Amino acid sequence: MSLIPIRPGAQPGGGRAPGPAAESERRDAARNRELLLCAAREIVEESGADALTMDRLAQRAGVGKGTVFRRFGSRAGLMMALLSGAEAEFQGRFMFGPPPVGPGAPPLERLIAVGAARISWILEFGELARAADASVYNRFDVPPAVLWHRHLEMLLREAGVTADPWLMASALGAALEPELLLHAVGVHGIAPERLAETWRELVTRVVGGG
Amino acid sequence: MSLIPIRPGAQPGGGRAPGPAAESERRDAARNRELLLCAAREIVEESGADALTMDRLAQRAGVGKGTVFRRFGSRAGLMMALLSGAEAEFQGRFMFGPPPVGPGAPPLERLIAVGAARISWILEFGELARAADASVYNRFDVPPAVLWHRHLEMLLREAGVTADPWLMASALGAALEPELLLHAVGVHGIAPERLAETWRELVTRVVGGG
Repeated sequence: MSLIPIRPGAQPGGGRAPGPAAESERRDAARNRELLLCAAREIVEESGADALTMDRLAQRAGVGKGTVFRRFGSRAGLMMALLSGAEAEFQGRFMFGPPPVGPGAPPLERLIAVGAARISWILEFGELARAADASVYNRFDVPPAVLWHRHLEMLLREAGVTADPWLMASALGAALEPELLLHAVGVHGIAPERLAETWRELVTRVVGGG
Repeated sequence: MSLIPIRPGAQPGGGRAPGPAAESERRDAARNRELLLCAAREIVEESGADALTMDRLAQRAGVGKGTVFRRFGSRAGLMMALLSGAEAEFQGRFMFGPPPVGPGAPPLERLIAVGAARISWILEFGELARAADASVYNRFDVPPAVLWHRHLEMLLREAGVTADPWLMASALGAALEPELLLHAVGVHGIAPERLAETWRELVTRVVGGG
């Protein structure tokens, strides 16, 4: 596969006045970015997330390594860009989607359902999420992780867990970390249903045992 | 600092018949290993665990990089060697030490106490444990992690948690991972007592809520 070559002088954020040329450059840049993301997804599908390096992506897409760095900043930035669509879809489900994952069900039901949904999500995207976790400096403070933690905290509060719900959300959220779940499934052959069932036991006991 | 130079031909496991010379080589090798571990501890104390690389250790100890690799195999092996003393001491406490961390107290009391002890341990050695986690391929299957997981599982069983105690131990153990706890303390300024209190809440609810 090949990409539209970046035209000389087409620097993102360069101070030129907008005009038809600048507009067309922006379109090219957006398209190049999408094509790079496609190539990155292909690498992940073929060889796993650990195989996705800036070098390999540049080679696959037939562009210079500098172009890849200009588009994504770093390997972590590339991972985040790849994940962001899947994360946004998942966030949409728990914030605005139908119950019991979305609003409208009792908080314990929502906790149980969102954990089960997260487990399925991780089994689909977790290889990428795990690699992204490993390549950012502070994986707990990236926006999707913060939003997810806050969501668990809110559900715990609504369910009446008033003793330090922020820390309790962090402790419970740790049980749904991609690395842990992928290890349970991949190395120990644990069925996804068993993971969801243990999550149900865990949050039911935490909410009910106060 | 400098080390006893490795004598030419003194290969560990070389097939020569044991004798006074081989005996003396083994003593030198053990001493060199201890001196390398001392140098490694100094680097960690001065600059943190992430600064401990095979290159830097070789430079600090005044030996070739090959010597460092021969002694420890890899950076992960070096981290494990550094941690093993501290891990062994901690294992001794929960397996053979006085109650409530050691045997003799009721299982829930032991769960609460061993979690609090683990939190203190992580605040002392966790920087090293975190770096070791990041440098081994499968951090969940190294012997100290397996022993720790089995210990939590056994306490849960004794406390009457019969629904999948293996997975429940894995979920609860995730709340005591070095990376998570060091982030809570280092980035969010959470007091260690709050961590221990949340652990107490968590295991009390899990054990009591069945």
